[in-house]
Amino acid sequence: MKTFEEMAGLSPSGAREVIRRKEWTGPTAGLAQGYVQANLVVLPRDWAFDLLLFCQRNPRPCPVLDVTEPGYPTPRGIARGADIRTDLPKYRVYRDGVLEDEPLDVTDIWRDDLVGFLLGCSFTFERALVEAGVPVRHIEMGVNVPMYITNIPCRAAGRLSGPMVVSMRPVPAGLVSKAVTTTSLFPAVHGAPVHAGDPQGIGIADLSRPDFGDPVEVRDGEVPLFWACGVTPQAALMASRPPFAITHSPGYMFIGDKKDSEYSVF
Amino acid sequence: MKTFEEMAGLSPSGAREVIRRKEWTGPTAGLAQGYVQANLVVLPRDWAFDLLLFCQRNPRPCPVLDVTEPGYPTPRGIARGADIRTDLPKYRVYRDGVLEDEPLDVTDIWRDDLVGFLLGCSFTFERALVEAGVPVRHIEMGVNVPMYITNIPCRAAGRLSGPMVVSMRPVPAGLVSKAVTTTSLFPAVHGAPVHAGDPQGIGIADLSRPDFGDPVEVRDGEVPLFWACGVTPQAALMASRPPFAITHSPGYMFIGDKKDSEYSVF
Repeated sequence: MKTFEEMAGLSPSGAREVIRRKEWTGPTAGLAQGYVQANLVVLPRDWAFDLLLFCQRNPRPCPVLDVTEPGYPTPRGIARGADIRTDLPKYRVYRDGVLEDEPLDVTDIWRDDLVGFLLGCSFTFERALVEAGVPVRHIEMGVNVPMYITNIPCRAAGRLSGPMVVSMRPVPAGLVSKAVTTTSLFPAVHGAPVHAGDPQGIGIADLSRPDFGDPVEVRDGEVPLFWACGVTPQAALMASRPPFAITHSPGYMFIGDKKDSEYSVF
Repeated sequence: MKTFEEMAGLSPSGAREVIRRKEWTGPTAGLAQGYVQANLVVLPRDWAFDLLLFCQRNPRPCPVLDVTEPGYPTPRGIARGADIRTDLPKYRVYRDGVLEDEPLDVTDIWRDDLVGFLLGCSFTFERALVEAGVPVRHIEMGVNVPMYITNIPCRAAGRLSGPMVVSMRPVPAGLVSKAVTTTSLFPAVHGAPVHAGDPQGIGIADLSRPDFGDPVEVRDGEVPLFWACGVTPQAALMASRPPFAITHSPGYMFIGDKKDSEYSVF
């Protein structure tokens, strides 16, 4: 096994190579620093139009970075030479919307009709937040970001529908504007918050009990900011129950060849 | 027939109503001022995934504002109550990639398998340019913007491929940065220029002979700026020859209910 420090300094293709050999089976946060990471959703061709349209209609939670050709496992737009069947440390396999397995490799269940979607991840704008002087609590605490199912409906597309999932980061009141403008400049990876303060207003009863990830402390003088989250399409898939689907395991992302900075407006 | 001044002050639904009654059959630039206008491409369901994927892979020239349900003519995301079969002043009908007709209404040739794509239009950022103090030559001259077929390849998607088409606006050298930053803030409607100066570098031999639209003067001290253009998907359709397609006639756009300002990052 490699160490985190070794993995952090690798190129994207180098990190993927290590993961492919299963010499790294942990979460990917901080690996190949400065390069984009992506959520993965794989569906049969028959469902691909529904998901692509769902993403187009809900671009804040579902920013599409790349889509593979049916049966072909390389997302050529963001990583030539990559293989989405082997290059993530951990996968989730769903049948009829039910989680069935969490393998380290999905080559043996790959099919010729499968289409892979690579969707933007907040890791990209979190780096920009830190560089802009906005503290990111869950990074400081070394835990996963807290995520909540809201009462904000997504626009349906074909057989797919569901509520928006958001991630939450508490920000000091004086830095709220900085957090908004900084993430606004990354419209291709969730962009600005969809909601600021007032968790009840979007159907969140208790911030200390997230639906996914880990709770974080919200201190006096801090405002909880809510960003659209890439878990949204997975929630829609689980609700809509396609016969077969593969996703990444939360936190175990795909590493692409593009730099985070390429997704900024400026 | 209504006058331009009457049309400019109407709401989007009011302008569409007049157009639907064919009491306005001219170009739409300046109508329902402040509201978004869109390019239209209509294709059979069988081709819709290819086009949606082509747009996802080429977001600068092909920014998708809305997609209709198969057979259903209302783009609910940007204009509830609208009808894309009647609400544009002029259409183009293609069979096997060949322009066959240019009717004022397409209700009689509508089919249950047709899907409509509404794509962003540079009218949205031109208003922002003028407000930022950047002169827009073709508006000053009262002509259509000049457009050119480049040697920049689009990423292919399924059966669709083709070169990027760009629009050109000459900008005084001291205002180039202002033009870039202003249009950067509209990533959903073409965003910043894809090329500045050096027309030969993208395969444009003679600026005075555009492939579409009208030529405009480029004065001493001005730099030609090139933006990705919404004619790109039409060029790909003509090259790829789907059996049936409907588009707007250039300049005769769809008027949506969203404000131009809603497409700005800030």
